[in-house]
Amino acid sequence: MSTNTEDAYVVGVDYGTLSGRAVVVRVSDGAELGSGVHEYPHAVMDTTLASTGAKLPPDWALQVPADYVEVLKVAVPAAIAEAGIDPAKVIGIGTDFTASTPLPVLADGTPLNELPEYADRPHAYVKLWKHHAAGEQADRINRVAAERGESWLPRYGGFISSEWEFAKALQLLEEDRELYDRMDHWVEAADWIVWQLTGEYVRNACTAGYKGILQDGELPSRDFLAALNPEFAGFGDEKLAYRIGQLGEAAGRLTAEAAAWTGLPEGIAVAVGNVDAHVTAPAAKAVEPGQMVAIMGTSTCHVMNHTEVVEVPGMCGVVDGGISAGLYGYEAGQSGVGDIFAWFVKNQVPARYFDDARAAGKSVHQHLTDLAAADPVGAHGLIALDWHSGNRSVLVDHQLSGLVVGATLTTRTEELYRALLEATAFGTRKIVETFNASGVPVKEFIAAGGLVKNPFLMQVYSDVLRMPISVIGSDQGPALGSAIHAAVAAGAYPDVKTAGDAMGRVEKAKYVPDAERADDYDALYAEYTALHDYFGRGGNEVMHRLKALKRKAVGA
Amino acid sequence: MSTNTEDAYVVGVDYGTLSGRAVVVRVSDGAELGSGVHEYPHAVMDTTLASTGAKLPPDWALQVPADYVEVLKVAVPAAIAEAGIDPAKVIGIGTDFTASTPLPVLADGTPLNELPEYADRPHAYVKLWKHHAAGEQADRINRVAAERGESWLPRYGGFISSEWEFAKALQLLEEDRELYDRMDHWVEAADWIVWQLTGEYVRNACTAGYKGILQDGELPSRDFLAALNPEFAGFGDEKLAYRIGQLGEAAGRLTAEAAAWTGLPEGIAVAVGNVDAHVTAPAAKAVEPGQMVAIMGTSTCHVMNHTEVVEVPGMCGVVDGGISAGLYGYEAGQSGVGDIFAWFVKNQVPARYFDDARAAGKSVHQHLTDLAAADPVGAHGLIALDWHSGNRSVLVDHQLSGLVVGATLTTRTEELYRALLEATAFGTRKIVETFNASGVPVKEFIAAGGLVKNPFLMQVYSDVLRMPISVIGSDQGPALGSAIHAAVAAGAYPDVKTAGDAMGRVEKAKYVPDAERADDYDALYAEYTALHDYFGRGGNEVMHRLKALKRKAVGA
Repeated sequence: MSTNTEDAYVVGVDYGTLSGRAVVVRVSDGAELGSGVHEYPHAVMDTTLASTGAKLPPDWALQVPADYVEVLKVAVPAAIAEAGIDPAKVIGIGTDFTASTPLPVLADGTPLNELPEYADRPHAYVKLWKHHAAGEQADRINRVAAERGESWLPRYGGFISSEWEFAKALQLLEEDRELYDRMDHWVEAADWIVWQLTGEYVRNACTAGYKGILQDGELPSRDFLAALNPEFAGFGDEKLAYRIGQLGEAAGRLTAEAAAWTGLPEGIAVAVGNVDAHVTAPAAKAVEPGQMVAIMGTSTCHVMNHTEVVEVPGMCGVVDGGISAGLYGYEAGQSGVGDIFAWFVKNQVPARYFDDARAAGKSVHQHLTDLAAADPVGAHGLIALDWHSGNRSVLVDHQLSGLVVGATLTTRTEELYRALLEATAFGTRKIVETFNASGVPVKEFIAAGGLVKNPFLMQVYSDVLRMPISVIGSDQGPALGSAIHAAVAAGAYPDVKTAGDAMGRVEKAKYVPDAERADDYDALYAEYTALHDYFGRGGNEVMHRLKALKRKAVGA
Repeated sequence: MSTNTEDAYVVGVDYGTLSGRAVVVRVSDGAELGSGVHEYPHAVMDTTLASTGAKLPPDWALQVPADYVEVLKVAVPAAIAEAGIDPAKVIGIGTDFTASTPLPVLADGTPLNELPEYADRPHAYVKLWKHHAAGEQADRINRVAAERGESWLPRYGGFISSEWEFAKALQLLEEDRELYDRMDHWVEAADWIVWQLTGEYVRNACTAGYKGILQDGELPSRDFLAALNPEFAGFGDEKLAYRIGQLGEAAGRLTAEAAAWTGLPEGIAVAVGNVDAHVTAPAAKAVEPGQMVAIMGTSTCHVMNHTEVVEVPGMCGVVDGGISAGLYGYEAGQSGVGDIFAWFVKNQVPARYFDDARAAGKSVHQHLTDLAAADPVGAHGLIALDWHSGNRSVLVDHQLSGLVVGATLTTRTEELYRALLEATAFGTRKIVETFNASGVPVKEFIAAGGLVKNPFLMQVYSDVLRMPISVIGSDQGPALGSAIHAAVAAGAYPDVKTAGDAMGRVEKAKYVPDAERADDYDALYAEYTALHDYFGRGGNEVMHRLKALKRKAVGA
């Protein structure tokens, strides 16, 4: 193929929760030559609205779309400069984004918050994936869908999340009708940024399927939407439906304006948008059926292809072509992983651990890990439930919360930390077992994301899962994945799998289970399961009631 | 009465877990004129034996009896000096001790550890109340007693503790037979120290009843003891039985040797020994039936008189004259209270809280309390079980452990701290309700001990119990109580109640419940109860299994 030479490059841009990262990648072999990062100036607005300083209600999380454009202007040129390449040799750009992260826009793509008259309206802004204030709307969607036996509901494990497009849009309708009426499109940020690059609105098949309830080419019916709220009947037709682009396709060509922002050549291919987790699979050479990729960071997302549509209880979703064209892509997740460890370190770790970590020249996470790693399995006498940010898969319940049982007066800080590490491994095993039991077997487990840097954690996962753990060979999996999609969009490779095989990197079976530790973890996992089912399946709804008491107490 | 003048004094000595405190008290009105403290040089030996440096097994806790004598030599003269009184005007001395804290001695009272050939033997030392290594023996005592339907078992709520005399003696027999055979008496430290002061061995009715299974004048039968271990059949007759002294009586007169140690007049009255908790009741003017005194420190002990013997499930014990002669004294307890707060502060509180506390000139406990106190009841969304040191009353199960449910990624350190404060209040309510339901009504709740200095904690107890909280008027309740017993032993008052009314101090109904907060706490208490019963009454034995896994993992 003509462009697949030593001298062609692509750019991948990964839009995370707090920053965007651009990476310059060689098309021929996936070598990462340079990168640049830009933090969003407004970060996440979860307590106050930046434009007015007004307080936001609990569970809100907003962003400013212009921040995303800044990433193009800052991080992309920085990556090109670090790579030291001639930008004229860049043949394509691809992007991935958090999801579901929708915003209301006019017909030309202008975000409503950029209209001066709406700058003070919280509902005019981007609702970040972790905006959790549409719980009531999600409950209604699930109840009505179950009552009506909507055919698409099982495709989402039986539950539509409050994080997704419909719940958030319904909240907008019911809380700020003027803005709902004014918006022409309810757009995923993943597609809005591609729109900024190309001047064209194309909905990517991934977010449209996983977050937008597009199944077999259809959106939920007007009747269903009217049953939620009569005024919502036209949402699908009028605000959401638009042209769909498949992953790996070009959404369009880089405009002159976007070329000026980025310093890249006008007219190069711009890949259809994608989600940060799903885009990572080809970067880890893991798009074959049964290869489960876990992108482990603040939260964990599990993505895996399979040849058939099967109903897996409590999965996030199954989407035709959701990971790569021609296969059914499955998604599951754990809503708190690294976030839980970070919360613990911030709120429950005494100064002496920070002092000792500093003296030893390592992070406090690594120091706690090293202290705890020396003990045999079970020596801490603890079990935790990893639901501090709710449960995204299997139970699908964001009103659940964290639990630690077994503490005594001799329990040490690092033991509590280790119990949290282990809890996330047990949560992953629960997901893997649910897929296996549903006829969607997990044949290989590939870890990606920031947490792969903790070898003890990886070994715990291997022991708990009783599976080898393969590890992605890039620190920038999503950006590499976006670059792979850019190469396909530019025509350098015939499809994403072929591009991934050439440009992706994985270390096979880097961690293998230890039989004795795996046996000991089985005993702890049995305890985890008993607590999981008691607190998660109706044995004791105390977590729900505590959250209700909390809402009442704070007057929310 | 002749000696009850402005010019007569008594000394009370309170032997705690880490130190002994002497207080000089005026007989006429209980005024505390001076005090002295001496820390035990060997503190608690719970990891190594001081004489050899040898490692001790898990759950051991030993002390050195000579340390107790040092308190007499140091703290008593210091108290006299601070009071600035003429020691010739001291008419009596009284003591109280932790319990059950027994030691093996020869016929003349010499502790076995003071024989050079036994100085390296752990079993030759004092077994402190929190020596928890006789669990297997306690289990056997309870099983055999239940099978045989021993009449004394219900007097202890159905459970004999591993902390008490029989379990610890049986451990001695089975682990160091030579020492068991060599000892002539198995003596409570409460009585051993009185023996040192008077030269006479008198067993106080309080420890003999609560810790030594003396009921209606009888010890457990030889048949029962033989069923535990044939070699143990003679323990009661041969090693334990001895003259009993009632509380408030004089055990004897101060010897010349002890007079030289203390600087007090030879021949003054020495009160029968007592337990630190029980001795506090008259210091708070609370020996009437239905007055429950909670001595709140590292752990909490509840003592209350009643007119009848009633079986209260899970109480520590009921003893005729156990608190004051002529009434049945009831005891219950919570094995972890201040200890849990201290564990949390040591192991789970970040530096910024210490920094802010220092800047504000208060303790970190007070700072955490102040931060948490501002929130409405239930705003933290948390429930904890206060079993980090096991459950002493109602459930009577030292294999239980701590639990916290409801944590989220926004949970703050001070919220976790408050949940632990509240958990201990819920634990107290569980005890009060159990007494009420058993026909031993709690009519007044009087708080004593170090934790009364936390007004927020006291208010939480009042709200949770829906009762006014009276507070003792002395910081040194046990030492004042010992002084009151010394005054009675010296003949200054006819009985302990009369002496307590003259010398004790209490602030009635210092805290009263707030109706709204009490209602909100009812909702949380309902959750506490559900978790208490699920984890504590067999719904899920996970806490037991985690401790078993822990023992297996550490090879214990």
